[in-house]
Amino acid sequence: MLKIVVDAMGGDNAPVEIVKGAIQSLKERNDFSLVLTGDSYLVKEELKKYKYDISRVEVVHCTEVITNDDVPTSAVRTKKDSSLVVGMKLLHDDPEVGGFVSAGSTGAVLTGGIMLVGRIKGVMRPALCPAIPNVRGSQTLLCDCGANAECKPQYLAQFGVMASAYAKAAFGVQNPRVGLLTNGTEEHKGDPLHQEAHQLLKQTDGVYFVGNVEGRDIMYGDIDVAVSDGFSGNVALKAIEGCGKTVATVLSDSLRASFSSKLGYLFVKKPIGKLKRMLDYSRMGGSVFLGLKKVVVKSHGSSKAKSICPSVVQAVDAYRNGLIDMIAQNLQTESPAEEADA
Amino acid sequence: MLKIVVDAMGGDNAPVEIVKGAIQSLKERNDFSLVLTGDSYLVKEELKKYKYDISRVEVVHCTEVITNDDVPTSAVRTKKDSSLVVGMKLLHDDPEVGGFVSAGSTGAVLTGGIMLVGRIKGVMRPALCPAIPNVRGSQTLLCDCGANAECKPQYLAQFGVMASAYAKAAFGVQNPRVGLLTNGTEEHKGDPLHQEAHQLLKQTDGVYFVGNVEGRDIMYGDIDVAVSDGFSGNVALKAIEGCGKTVATVLSDSLRASFSSKLGYLFVKKPIGKLKRMLDYSRMGGSVFLGLKKVVVKSHGSSKAKSICPSVVQAVDAYRNGLIDMIAQNLQTESPAEEADA
Repeated sequence: MLKIVVDAMGGDNAPVEIVKGAIQSLKERNDFSLVLTGDSYLVKEELKKYKYDISRVEVVHCTEVITNDDVPTSAVRTKKDSSLVVGMKLLHDDPEVGGFVSAGSTGAVLTGGIMLVGRIKGVMRPALCPAIPNVRGSQTLLCDCGANAECKPQYLAQFGVMASAYAKAAFGVQNPRVGLLTNGTEEHKGDPLHQEAHQLLKQTDGVYFVGNVEGRDIMYGDIDVAVSDGFSGNVALKAIEGCGKTVATVLSDSLRASFSSKLGYLFVKKPIGKLKRMLDYSRMGGSVFLGLKKVVVKSHGSSKAKSICPSVVQAVDAYRNGLIDMIAQNLQTESPAEEADA
Repeated sequence: MLKIVVDAMGGDNAPVEIVKGAIQSLKERNDFSLVLTGDSYLVKEELKKYKYDISRVEVVHCTEVITNDDVPTSAVRTKKDSSLVVGMKLLHDDPEVGGFVSAGSTGAVLTGGIMLVGRIKGVMRPALCPAIPNVRGSQTLLCDCGANAECKPQYLAQFGVMASAYAKAAFGVQNPRVGLLTNGTEEHKGDPLHQEAHQLLKQTDGVYFVGNVEGRDIMYGDIDVAVSDGFSGNVALKAIEGCGKTVATVLSDSLRASFSSKLGYLFVKKPIGKLKRMLDYSRMGGSVFLGLKKVVVKSHGSSKAKSICPSVVQAVDAYRNGLIDMIAQNLQTESPAEEADA
């Protein structure tokens, strides 16, 4: 049976919310089992709170935790008995394990992914790829959103290939429309990095490149994939996150100020709830770390159960839908950029 | 009397909305007069629609218009009788003219500003600086948001100096808190450009540098100025714009779906209106083009009267509050970066 490893100690709300979310995910999909890595005493205390099929949950004890204060590279090297390192080694070694989910340090997940899981042949730089809800009710993939602050044009072209495979495998988009995130839609816009990336993306077979897009296009839904360098992708992702939270705060405050009666709130509960759900992209799961030999999902550091559950489901589905093979295949056949890098 | 020149032919809604907004601004401030540049027949036809003190409005006839299809550099050189070039020359030549407002081509405003108005002594690169509403009900200045897609660390340090002067002059912020927009709050985050800019900003006397900030911090209001390269600043600005518009659309749609009666809408009209006003940053005017010898305000290309009016007021206030002198003075005394560039 397919196994998904969950880093039970990673993130601000570990292990309480991580275990809760992981157990919830068992109800969402029937055909997999969980491996929880972490302090077995703490994890088992949490597990006692829930009813579940015990044949579907295994706990692997580890004594260490990698925190945000650790330097990622050395932590991955030295904390060999941490929930993250043990989990990623399981992912690498055990053919039954199809995916790994962590809400721990982003740096450690990235470093561990590259060092312990390894890159798919031909991948220059793996990239973080979240799904952002858009106004059409679907999602736009933003790739890269922070794994690579410094990029070469060839990396960006490859992000387009990998994210297209992800859009097909995870969301069933037949011919994903790919835009390049820049400071204007005209072809000549941007710095030399983006100008060269534009030309490469044009030539990349199998990538349906629609040209440059702007920050606003991420949520308009006219594209399925926004390719970006990890620096500006991260800025865009967090700008959207900040705007969403600001809107939710202002709206709640002003509604509270206006509605003294419960009756009044009844009128707006449903539409406001719909908006909040739309802005709350935690329900869409985490960012998939594209380009690794196996499925790695990085959930937000502040993840609660409602984000961990879809992250596990995301890992199950990505594995089942053949994400890794699709990326490997697309890279071999579609990318002229593959050989352009040393 | 102080004169503000308005490019009556610039933007998608010229001259109708431009003239309308300019006339509205006369009511907001008493102590200035307008100079409208453009086709005098068209402009005067618009003026006929309004009641105003004719001694406060002058029309300067020009025969040409610079459009978004023009190449900015050559258009500014060759279309000498365009509303933009004539307006900027007036700004440069006439000591009574204190500011210029245009909703025309951004590229042409930037090129014209540098070629026809000129930079303050010591300014390496002028920068576009919009004010973005934040959750605290005040505003965060984002500098640069698109004038310079490629930057050097010294430019970024100077953006901090110029935007601090603007925060003081235009918004009365005594000691503006300045953050550097990057992909993480830790000091080492970002690419070499931002790592070096971080060190320079630390050493810049008179800039109250609070460290790296993320995209989400723009709307949280814990900083007054976000310094950014023009590429990622533009991405952030437009990501926020897109998120705001998406929220407004989803909210309107779901409210319409829920409220069939007018009674229901009455309950939510006020709080929703408050939110929409907050998200509608057009009411805050345009982006000031900081670093020029005179005040230039670039209003959004799709500006209607409600954006043009505050843009003109912004120009009046920036002039009256001594923005230009404050930038010149701060650059001489505060920036170690000034001499670092060729």
